[in-house]
Amino acid sequence: MKKAVKLADRKARNETGLFLIEGYRELKRAADSGVVVQTLFICPKLFLGSNEDALIDQIRSSDAEVILCSEQVFRKLSYRDRPDGLVAIAIQMQRHLKDLVSRLASKKDPFLIIAEAIEKPGNLGTILRSADAAGVDGVIVCDRCTDIYNPNVVRASVGTLFTIPVVEATSAETLLWLQQKKIKVVAATPSAKEEFTDTNLTGGVAIAVGTEQLGLTELWMNASDIQVRIPMHGIADSLNVATATTLLVYEVVRQRKSHRDLHLWK
Amino acid sequence: MKKAVKLADRKARNETGLFLIEGYRELKRAADSGVVVQTLFICPKLFLGSNEDALIDQIRSSDAEVILCSEQVFRKLSYRDRPDGLVAIAIQMQRHLKDLVSRLASKKDPFLIIAEAIEKPGNLGTILRSADAAGVDGVIVCDRCTDIYNPNVVRASVGTLFTIPVVEATSAETLLWLQQKKIKVVAATPSAKEEFTDTNLTGGVAIAVGTEQLGLTELWMNASDIQVRIPMHGIADSLNVATATTLLVYEVVRQRKSHRDLHLWK
Repeated sequence: MKKAVKLADRKARNETGLFLIEGYRELKRAADSGVVVQTLFICPKLFLGSNEDALIDQIRSSDAEVILCSEQVFRKLSYRDRPDGLVAIAIQMQRHLKDLVSRLASKKDPFLIIAEAIEKPGNLGTILRSADAAGVDGVIVCDRCTDIYNPNVVRASVGTLFTIPVVEATSAETLLWLQQKKIKVVAATPSAKEEFTDTNLTGGVAIAVGTEQLGLTELWMNASDIQVRIPMHGIADSLNVATATTLLVYEVVRQRKSHRDLHLWK
Repeated sequence: MKKAVKLADRKARNETGLFLIEGYRELKRAADSGVVVQTLFICPKLFLGSNEDALIDQIRSSDAEVILCSEQVFRKLSYRDRPDGLVAIAIQMQRHLKDLVSRLASKKDPFLIIAEAIEKPGNLGTILRSADAAGVDGVIVCDRCTDIYNPNVVRASVGTLFTIPVVEATSAETLLWLQQKKIKVVAATPSAKEEFTDTNLTGGVAIAVGTEQLGLTELWMNASDIQVRIPMHGIADSLNVATATTLLVYEVVRQRKSHRDLHLWK
């Protein structure tokens, strides 16, 4: 129990290689994706649905310990306002760049997101949720600032952290790898000439986004093959990083679709 | 000082008609937009830039009381990890539907966002930030759940709460008003036939979005004139509400621009 509470801190997560997963939806996606659960804390009084028992059986069958908690104890474990009676200690997935290779082997035009040093867990989680929705092939978290096992990343990603390939790598190795694969790096910057909706993004692309405060580092900005501008019609000079990422990836989706439609029509 | 700390709570904000504004950027935008500051707490040791003195003079000249604080005291007032030495108590703007009328009078095709009962302040603030960036004419917050004066709305909006017309109204009065103005309500729903990028959104539109958990209520869904689908290629069945809103408003921007370009070309 104490171990679980401690995992809210990054230091404990780094030392143990463990992390917390809370919530039915998140745990179901983790279990279905093969994430290994060590301990599952349950409080049936707080269950919101009727499929919890099946999920508990699924997790127990892979040798997890299941611990029944009183509501009072469970609320101490939970990091949510409205806990739904399920919190687990799981083993970190430890996925690296090489794990992306097999997935991309069959892809003509790879579609990636590079998230460089994002600070807020909610933003990183929302980027993962949008990556899943847009059907990207993978997200590479470079020079991590927020670790991907932060409880708020898991929550904001609504469990898509487990269903899409999310790998961690340094910027240097990622850049080299992208060059080898001939995947073009797309960076959004106010100084770009063309708007993102007027720029051809139909080939293999990696959408690169940087910190909330300062955007991409010089390293990534200089290495970018395509620079685009998101038009800003108001007083503020930038968008939230997760919303900007979503705009860019859905523009890729739109262009690929209309490119396909045009091709079919010919 | 105690008064300021209390304003973190909604109850105190409702009772007093006051709220907190923290940060140089947010306060500058508030002051430039005519928001009335009652008391300004400053801690010069924490200042990050060199324009603070000019802003303090600007705020002082409109009869605000300026209180110098020690770092220790200031950190108690601040709700940020990295405070920048400026927190103010200001008077709530109290803007209503009728305040939008004059702004829309000269508009051929009004462009609005309806935010129905958004729960998380960070989401509401991010919607305002995107509204500013996309150049919408106003945001109508219906049947409010999070109040727009929550400190995290101010923060996530990066002060655009003050620069764009944000009004509060009931759903019933808003719907009636939109019908009178012949502004079409656009709702995103997974059951819509057409994708949002294939649907004509170039006329006067109000993009309507609902709660994080359940989306728009039946009332708004039934009243919508245009229903669109955001394609979902992954395992999750929805996007974060602020990112979905941003996609929809930027699609309006894209369509209006290409419509204009086509027209000019003819």
